Amino acid sequence: MLSPDTILSRIASPADLKALSDEQLDRLADEMRHELIDVVGRRAAHFASNLGVVELALALHLSFDFSRDRLIWDTGHQIYPHKLITGRAAELHTIRTKGGLMGYPNPAESPYDLFMTGHAGCAPSTALGLKLGDELAGRADAHSVAVIGDGAFPSGIVFEALNHAGGSESKLLVVLNDNKMSICPPVGGFANALDRARMSTTYHDWNKRLKSLLPSIPLVGETAERWLQQCKDAIKASLQHGMLFEELGFTYLGPIDGHDLKGLRSYLERVKTMRGPVLLHVLTNKGHGFEPAVKDPVKFHAPNPFKKAKEGIVPLKVSSNETYTDAFSAALFDACARDPKVAVLTAAMCEGNKLQKVRETFPKQFFDVGICESHAVAVAGGMAKAGARPVVDIYSTFLQRSYDQIFQEVALQNLPVVFCIDRAGVVGADGPTHHGSYDLAYMRIFPNMVVMAPGDRRDVSPMLDFALGHDSPVSIRYPRANLEAVEREPQPIELGQAEVIEWETDGMFVACGAMLGACVRAAGVLHERYGLNVGVINARFVKPLDRATIGKAIEEAAFVLTVEEGCLNGGFGSAVLEAANDAGLPTHHVRRVGLPDRFILHAERDEQLAEVGLDVDGLVASALDLARAVGLEFTDIGPAVATNGRAHREADGSTVVAATPSEK
Amino acid sequence: MLSPDTILSRIASPADLKALSDEQLDRLADEMRHELIDVVGRRAAHFASNLGVVELALALHLSFDFSRDRLIWDTGHQIYPHKLITGRAAELHTIRTKGGLMGYPNPAESPYDLFMTGHAGCAPSTALGLKLGDELAGRADAHSVAVIGDGAFPSGIVFEALNHAGGSESKLLVVLNDNKMSICPPVGGFANALDRARMSTTYHDWNKRLKSLLPSIPLVGETAERWLQQCKDAIKASLQHGMLFEELGFTYLGPIDGHDLKGLRSYLERVKTMRGPVLLHVLTNKGHGFEPAVKDPVKFHAPNPFKKAKEGIVPLKVSSNETYTDAFSAALFDACARDPKVAVLTAAMCEGNKLQKVRETFPKQFFDVGICESHAVAVAGGMAKAGARPVVDIYSTFLQRSYDQIFQEVALQNLPVVFCIDRAGVVGADGPTHHGSYDLAYMRIFPNMVVMAPGDRRDVSPMLDFALGHDSPVSIRYPRANLEAVEREPQPIELGQAEVIEWETDGMFVACGAMLGACVRAAGVLHERYGLNVGVINARFVKPLDRATIGKAIEEAAFVLTVEEGCLNGGFGSAVLEAANDAGLPTHHVRRVGLPDRFILHAERDEQLAEVGLDVDGLVASALDLARAVGLEFTDIGPAVATNGRAHREADGSTVVAATPSEK
Repeated sequence: MLSPDTILSRIASPADLKALSDEQLDRLADEMRHELIDVVGRRAAHFASNLGVVELALALHLSFDFSRDRLIWDTGHQIYPHKLITGRAAELHTIRTKGGLMGYPNPAESPYDLFMTGHAGCAPSTALGLKLGDELAGRADAHSVAVIGDGAFPSGIVFEALNHAGGSESKLLVVLNDNKMSICPPVGGFANALDRARMSTTYHDWNKRLKSLLPSIPLVGETAERWLQQCKDAIKASLQHGMLFEELGFTYLGPIDGHDLKGLRSYLERVKTMRGPVLLHVLTNKGHGFEPAVKDPVKFHAPNPFKKAKEGIVPLKVSSNETYTDAFSAALFDACARDPKVAVLTAAMCEGNKLQKVRETFPKQFFDVGICESHAVAVAGGMAKAGARPVVDIYSTFLQRSYDQIFQEVALQNLPVVFCIDRAGVVGADGPTHHGSYDLAYMRIFPNMVVMAPGDRRDVSPMLDFALGHDSPVSIRYPRANLEAVEREPQPIELGQAEVIEWETDGMFVACGAMLGACVRAAGVLHERYGLNVGVINARFVKPLDRATIGKAIEEAAFVLTVEEGCLNGGFGSAVLEAANDAGLPTHHVRRVGLPDRFILHAERDEQLAEVGLDVDGLVASALDLARAVGLEFTDIGPAVATNGRAHREADGSTVVAATPSEK
Repeated sequence: MLSPDTILSRIASPADLKALSDEQLDRLADEMRHELIDVVGRRAAHFASNLGVVELALALHLSFDFSRDRLIWDTGHQIYPHKLITGRAAELHTIRTKGGLMGYPNPAESPYDLFMTGHAGCAPSTALGLKLGDELAGRADAHSVAVIGDGAFPSGIVFEALNHAGGSESKLLVVLNDNKMSICPPVGGFANALDRARMSTTYHDWNKRLKSLLPSIPLVGETAERWLQQCKDAIKASLQHGMLFEELGFTYLGPIDGHDLKGLRSYLERVKTMRGPVLLHVLTNKGHGFEPAVKDPVKFHAPNPFKKAKEGIVPLKVSSNETYTDAFSAALFDACARDPKVAVLTAAMCEGNKLQKVRETFPKQFFDVGICESHAVAVAGGMAKAGARPVVDIYSTFLQRSYDQIFQEVALQNLPVVFCIDRAGVVGADGPTHHGSYDLAYMRIFPNMVVMAPGDRRDVSPMLDFALGHDSPVSIRYPRANLEAVEREPQPIELGQAEVIEWETDGMFVACGAMLGACVRAAGVLHERYGLNVGVINARFVKPLDRATIGKAIEEAAFVLTVEEGCLNGGFGSAVLEAANDAGLPTHHVRRVGLPDRFILHAERDEQLAEVGLDVDGLVASALDLARAVGLEFTDIGPAVATNGRAHREADGSTVVAATPSEK
């Protein structure tokens, strides 16, 4: 916890920084780093990137006045040092917990956080927008700064912003925070260009080098040719340096050392006096000041909680539960092994999607395109057209960046691209920018698109196999959750067919995807404690919807609850209402449970599910409410007698939920 | 019509080109151009861009074999010469008409059309995907070519594709078709870079220039400094040339003359033997071979139908009807005049959105960011945060490219950005890529977003005023249609309030947006011909929906039809079903009319509306069907007696629809 005799504890706002001596600032940087290692290491949080920008955050707040100037941290998970010096040091220990600080910029926390960011690459655009808005509002002298990492830089929107700013006179500072590292190792032509820039001589060196080439004798013939070539190479080397940005109309400065606070400040002061858009290339080390993180920045991007001890890094908690991500990663591995035409595409989420083994074993079938989701989907469309079987493996929230390519390059062409939509539903501590709330709603509106969600672990492989054998686009969505298995004899996957787990007439749960387990447990509670006989359908398909099975449930059951971990507006439950309406079925006894029409703050995933009524208690409450509304009679024998559903752990650590209440 | 004694009439496939002499090829180019001017001029179609790529299309088909090599025309409206030489010359006169050739590439027409394109910038991605897919499928020797215009080039996805290809070894040819012109005049840093490339000396010239600088006396002191600077400038000028692409890992060739068929072919042959990704910079003239189009390529991008006659260009049809686009353009002009903090943003659609007057009168409040929709929305978010009042004016289909920015940069931040969504609904001859089918479904799922649609011309200004005064994001959608006015005393716009045009209990139309006029006419027909009393609600708000008014209609009317020019899945009608379900209202007598779950081919807009039952006849039929289903009795007095609703033309050319059947 923050000690009161630190400089850091006395920084109530960035204004307090300006009174500090160089020596004090160095001490402050050390204290900030210590606080980050101590506090952030103890929980799952973004680690290495924050250690890398301590000096940059200090330099920016020392050189600018962000009570009126504008600062956007792209992607935003490197916001902690900024939070430490904008009055939030004492609360850092609450970060990413319910009611605590958000792990991203949050305008509700501080006027110094302008945009809640989380998706990569938008900072140059919003910073330029702030600049243009300030101009319209009569504050033309306010500076505007975007800090963006080299991993986010290849995102298309960055290029769009650079094109706009570079073609204008607008004064905009883009700080390229180059830590040679995205969340995954860097890929692509841009990364190579940065490599060259890092290795090349600086602007100031080129004159020196050229002078050493200067002839002291007149040049003629072959000597002249040779000399010219040397001369050209020397100048080319110096010019290449940042040419990409210069071509777009930016003034390029750098690369400079991002851990030299004095140097940073002097460059920033220089930039303040320059006209037009400037790109300042800053080299930082992810994990700077903490050796294990410098050595393995991928692992320490968002490491498991650990403690620094005498014996080194001590993990605080090890979770061995297998997740949906694990199951899909394994199924994709098998698919690649079976068919060399299967290709797996990821957008810099090789780690998050656990695709390392696929990448290593099938390098020709694995494509990491960087944080370029739009391109990932379009390139998959091309692959499918050529006869390959591409699988696009992207988080639900980030796949939003491909909306138009899903429409044009895949659905419109009716090409067999498979979308594995990870992190569909609430995601826990990352919060509002990262929830996968909309994919059911956005996928099901496109013609030709099949939309599936596995009910449990036993659906995973068969669904992927089905998708790879289907000659149209297919999407499969699953949550950031541990695997469950619902006890049953699983039926094979058939297009548009739901699976009936248990048929009852008091009520029916129609479960979309991994909500199945909670529905089965809730049905158990409703039976054991309230004597209600409630069945469960594993919908499996959101599109085409199994209108026959779900329609029959609507006809026969006294009440029907649709349950989805997705937005209620236009989601799975809406698809059920549409189907019922088309079939002329009544729906007064149908109710939809899902994500409400508001943004859900960071917390543990379980807390979030409980908050929106998607846990067992919430489902039971909704069912009882609906049962009352339709006039069902029931009694409560109390929690002491009933159990909370039926579940046990299998040898591999996964949970198995019994489908049938045992008393029946 | 195509004459049988032309070379063109004998080109059944690109293979036939290879037997032609240079002279015959030149004649063929002339014939193609003649056919284009003659046929395409007679209808509203993309004109100038097609004249610009006659030689390029020929050269590509001569140098490659696209029965196995791959060719993608980006954006796709310059596809006509390609269609002429891939067996479709005789049908060119059917282009963009119902059942005729599509105005874009169409895989259903020809194996030479691989992707149905229409949205800009995706060709490099799909071409790379085809290359990678061919490699996986064992056809590593197949070439892959993307042709993309300079207007589309700044789209972010292009940069993403270049980054991917440039970092790989993949052999990909990107032809930059540089006609110095997007649909609107070019903007941004990339356009400036191309300007420099066009003007700079060629690679081969630089040696010459440098040699002229060679010293014949030893260099020392100030003379040396001066000489060095000259030397640096000369080399810099030569290197700058294409450096943007070279930096990303592409080999850059050009710029070369796009109307020199021989030259083009020789460069393409050279490219075929090169390794890795290549960018070939080709200079073409939009409208080449047709002087009026060369002089005014913006006007001739997709001109009104005309005929070439002795006296010059003769317009074939002049439409003076005012459209929704006109009305919004005028309302935006007024808004800019009233408040200097209002900013209007467009993505290269200054012409399509009719914003020329805004651009000229309020240059500081107008922003054309090029074909960069993602950036447009993010920059608007920044502006709004700084206190400006940005209005993003983009077609429904293209706004799909901003889905993630609408989510993160606007809705999540709850910033007052106004979206004017033009071309919402079916758009006629442009066809499937251009319909605005999804905006209602994709906008209404985001928290904080207000979704509106004007029922007629009288709603336009008040809605924009309401939006600009509302402190949250607002979207307003309207079709590519002539303005109508429904006779009534319009009620002021209030958040979440529908407007009742006429209340009846036999049935109620709940009209979303500009479907209002058709609903009023249909109500007239139902009354006059069938004696049914059907009322009409102008929904105005899709979100927040007027649950009270619409709920009352569901309670009181024997049947309710929701009518929307948007997809049925998750659209306005679904929102009504959700609201009814939440309120526990029955919906067996509610039916939704809207766009079905399939893609709608090119045709006239009226033909498309009729096809999906969104014209007056279709609405009457749906209403009668539903009336029968709910047991209403009615008789048919026949069409000879009844009129087709009530409508007259006003002095300004717009149509006014009488709200109340006159007999009542």
